[in-house]
Amino acid sequence: MKSPNVEPGLIGLIGLIGQSVSAVDTPALVLDLDAMERNLARMAEFARRHGVRLRPHAKMHKSAALALKQMQAGAVGVCVQKTSEALALAAAGVNDIYISNEVIAPHKLQQVAALAHALHSQGGRLAIAVDSLPGVQALAEACQSLNTASVIDVFIELDVGHGRCGVGSADAVVALARALAQHSGLRFAGLQAYHGRAQHGRTPAERQAAFDQVLARVKAARAALEQAGLPAALITGAGTGTFALEAASGVYGELQAGSYLFMDADYAQNMPAPDQPEFEHALFIKTQVMSVSATHAVCDAGHKSHAIDSGLPTVWARDLHYGNGGDEHGILRGETLPALGDTLWLVPGHCDPTVNLHAQLVGVRGGLSQGVVESLFNVDARGCLT
Amino acid sequence: MKSPNVEPGLIGLIGLIGQSVSAVDTPALVLDLDAMERNLARMAEFARRHGVRLRPHAKMHKSAALALKQMQAGAVGVCVQKTSEALALAAAGVNDIYISNEVIAPHKLQQVAALAHALHSQGGRLAIAVDSLPGVQALAEACQSLNTASVIDVFIELDVGHGRCGVGSADAVVALARALAQHSGLRFAGLQAYHGRAQHGRTPAERQAAFDQVLARVKAARAALEQAGLPAALITGAGTGTFALEAASGVYGELQAGSYLFMDADYAQNMPAPDQPEFEHALFIKTQVMSVSATHAVCDAGHKSHAIDSGLPTVWARDLHYGNGGDEHGILRGETLPALGDTLWLVPGHCDPTVNLHAQLVGVRGGLSQGVVESLFNVDARGCLT
Repeated sequence: MKSPNVEPGLIGLIGLIGQSVSAVDTPALVLDLDAMERNLARMAEFARRHGVRLRPHAKMHKSAALALKQMQAGAVGVCVQKTSEALALAAAGVNDIYISNEVIAPHKLQQVAALAHALHSQGGRLAIAVDSLPGVQALAEACQSLNTASVIDVFIELDVGHGRCGVGSADAVVALARALAQHSGLRFAGLQAYHGRAQHGRTPAERQAAFDQVLARVKAARAALEQAGLPAALITGAGTGTFALEAASGVYGELQAGSYLFMDADYAQNMPAPDQPEFEHALFIKTQVMSVSATHAVCDAGHKSHAIDSGLPTVWARDLHYGNGGDEHGILRGETLPALGDTLWLVPGHCDPTVNLHAQLVGVRGGLSQGVVESLFNVDARGCLT
Repeated sequence: MKSPNVEPGLIGLIGLIGQSVSAVDTPALVLDLDAMERNLARMAEFARRHGVRLRPHAKMHKSAALALKQMQAGAVGVCVQKTSEALALAAAGVNDIYISNEVIAPHKLQQVAALAHALHSQGGRLAIAVDSLPGVQALAEACQSLNTASVIDVFIELDVGHGRCGVGSADAVVALARALAQHSGLRFAGLQAYHGRAQHGRTPAERQAAFDQVLARVKAARAALEQAGLPAALITGAGTGTFALEAASGVYGELQAGSYLFMDADYAQNMPAPDQPEFEHALFIKTQVMSVSATHAVCDAGHKSHAIDSGLPTVWARDLHYGNGGDEHGILRGETLPALGDTLWLVPGHCDPTVNLHAQLVGVRGGLSQGVVESLFNVDARGCLT
């Protein structure tokens, strides 16, 4: 028996389908499907209303089934950060993928070129980012060695203030666009312009100030490209913190926000801007209290269950503080401690690396306390680091 | 073709065996086999010389093949923290396992009882920890429901200062030992007495001071048990920071250190005590530089490649500082920046949750720069959270 809601590889969990959420073993990553679907619809509607493309970052959920849901709701495709993520999602049916990151290793670029060809033959496409002349050269060589007529869309990454990858000047952008123009298998598709830290400014004013700097750099690069006769067809970027600013800029044509679908404790600390849809927590860790003392309780979810780069998880709908208990435990304090065996729900600090710790997501319909397991989602690109 | 050095599930990587380490894709978790084997032998020799049992914590490597190597070198078995870790390692051939942690859920305890029976029938054994009367009751019920003659060794966890699980008083220990004595399927095996934070005191004096407190609590509980006519057959605990103190105590009979096998950047900050073997870094992340600017370089390993709970990784044998670049990137700064495409080796801050991020470990013989891939190890219990 195979339910239509079950991804391959989840055979061991099929028995959960149709059961109460209370049957889900702990710790487990649980999706509140009602909340997730509201988030999905809100962002899709926002993008439509603002006339911008939505290309959510699948590095967040790493699940082909969820990527396809986003595309069914109007997304043009998804972003990923790694070659192996692109391969994993393509193998599971996603046919429009943008590797919004630099790839340098020749053997990886061979995979990129082969995947571009495969997706192109199926009516899909693959795009990639570059930020160096050797990167352009290596990509062109990989495409030439395949000897196909397929074209890869290439975005030039501009460092818009994050200080990570990307070139820093409009001149460098123009030089890269000129280099791309010399290779028939590569099409200069536009600018990759994402500022990670700007997403986490807590007030709308902080995010606006960071974005003003971003926009000034993008406009300068765009103008230089136009002057050079190599206009950028598309500016792509944005995250769950700033997407409303990119959408309103008149410059960005594509939004890459990903976390909006699940949300996390870090993004929940952002005060939303007035014209921005609000998103709900849809991603939870179900955990059980497995030790209680006079001063604290201990649950069975530690930082092998959730990422801690953006802070520890918060406890959902309970007046409890989650403290660091190491890899396998969380330490709970509060005026009223939970009892041994109690179920608690944690909201992870950061959704992306939390999902990467799990093989599957358990989708629940009807709420966390009384809901029923409806779907299971493979984390197809879990651990796809290369 | 199946090499004897290849675990099941690694078929896709078999082609690496015999190849230069330069063929290993990035980022990847690489074991320096020479260093690891020296660590393995040093700890085994230390335990033999001090007449204490070694039961390394397999929550660190989560690999049955490595657990079996430790047992071949003299370890009596391994510890794990989770029921599913025990099941995964047992399925891969490890037959003496101690779940050094509390398990409360009845369905998990059913698995524990069934696994105890299975291991017992094969001449192995399963042990577990408790810290509550309801925990003893639930474990006894699970064993009774199986209706077998197998006996589970049960350790009572004493909180020796860490402030996580475990009972806090000698009286509570005695009460639990009395409860255990009422169940024929449960054998009171001794005390679980581990202080996690004590491992990371940087000077021998700091660790000694923390351990003095631990030992006082252990001795009080041991005396109370003797007085009650329920002597503790074994005191088990210790980690890579303090194991020499437990071994010298005359009280501990079993060491649970795990990290010694791989080491990490955090443990490397501990000044070793004079009578303690030194361990070498054996666990590395191979990473490639994929972007270079005037001020910094960027490598392809971020915190989806390594855990950051004990700090960011350090760069091995290069005068470079690794800075946080998010999930997929590391930002490298230093007087001489590496070039685009360069290979770097990172030493993770904390080995346990780093290994949990990877599906396999690549074993290299002959050093990181010129070595050859000799073995591949499955991380069998990767993501085994339940």
